[in-house]
Amino acid sequence: MWLQREITLRARPRGFHLVTDEVLGALPEMRDVDVGLCHLFIRHTSASLTLNENASPDVRRDFETWFDDAVPEDFGGWTHTLEGPDDMPAHIKASLLGPALSLPVSGGRLALGTWQGVYLCEHRDDGGARSLLATLQGE
Amino acid sequence: MWLQREITLRARPRGFHLVTDEVLGALPEMRDVDVGLCHLFIRHTSASLTLNENASPDVRRDFETWFDDAVPEDFGGWTHTLEGPDDMPAHIKASLLGPALSLPVSGGRLALGTWQGVYLCEHRDDGGARSLLATLQGE
Amino acid sequence: MWLQREITLRARPRGFHLVTDEVLGALPEMRDVDVGLCHLFIRHTSASLTLNENASPDVRRDFETWFDDAVPEDFGGWTHTLEGPDDMPAHIKASLLGPALSLPVSGGRLALGTWQGVYLCEHRDDGGARSLLATLQGE
Repeated sequence: MWLQREITLRARPRGFHLVTDEVLGALPEMRDVDVGLCHLFIRHTSASLTLNENASPDVRRDFETWFDDAVPEDFGGWTHTLEGPDDMPAHIKASLLGPALSLPVSGGRLALGTWQGVYLCEHRDDGGARSLLATLQGE
Repeated sequence: MWLQREITLRARPRGFHLVTDEVLGALPEMRDVDVGLCHLFIRHTSASLTLNENASPDVRRDFETWFDDAVPEDFGGWTHTLEGPDDMPAHIKASLLGPALSLPVSGGRLALGTWQGVYLCEHRDDGGARSLLATLQGE
Repeated sequence: MWLQREITLRARPRGFHLVTDEVLGALPEMRDVDVGLCHLFIRHTSASLTLNENASPDVRRDFETWFDDAVPEDFGGWTHTLEGPDDMPAHIKASLLGPALSLPVSGGRLALGTWQGVYLCEHRDDGGARSLLATLQGE
């Protein structure tokens, strides 16, 4: 069984956002997959996906703080500055975190750990709506 | 062919640990997969999986040293400090390295390069046993 | 449908290199995949794969500048120095970016965003030719 569906995530401010429920809501067919994988792919180079702690908003805020410190807008080495100071850091953060998540499906549900949730990592100040392509496979 | 199996990795100290043989030992059915993929997924947000050099223990020690320096416990920006000084750095490291590895299977074996091995990246001082979910597919 | 093929990428200098066309050229069977996934795997621990901006060479140059700054050769903590000053940083960068990309295939093509391209991230001064293993699946 293969299913592919585009999911549009509404525009969000720069930061790390929990989107597990929004993604799952768009994939009701997952309930028919006993064993499989759900591949989530973001079709952008200045936003990314990761999996992390789903309970405390302060964890997501600390993600933003650390990444802004590690990949600063005022890093002296940027040459690609045409698209604004948040652009080149966004590209680097996007590759550090990655454009895709491949998640196990078991008994009709994502087989995540208790504390795991899907983050949309929005690295631009005004990134706009973001397009995901979900690919669900299994039996 | 789909197979899904939980693998419990025994508690290990903070650091980077080579677990290739332990993971392969739990998946004897791989020998029947001529072409496929083996997806390894860690169900935690303070430990991660990566693939790197399988020969020198000093490489794994240098991983620990660099990550501790890049994501320090005494980073001034942490607000999520309730669960101890090693907790928030563990979350960041987990997302930098990622919760999953998808590895090619060829002729009944993982088709890794000569020097590639699977690392369990334990980012907490006392993380306890860690649960992996392996999903094997192929033909 | 499963297909697995080794792709040898010619030796390139240290840096980030756009290889989308080279990889796609080696996988003409993708045109027969209506819905599926293309898994690209690099069989080395000092080079990696990522997806990022496919238009501006200065983005790729800024990747090299930032990663060299974040994982410097003269970091005081390295103990694994036997294979040269570029070796241990290469291992860390390889794990930060990762050894694999899993990309959606739709209607016979990679379903990438407009600006997304596949980067070979060469972290060694003289890494030589690099071996990829591509695994294509779908229906």
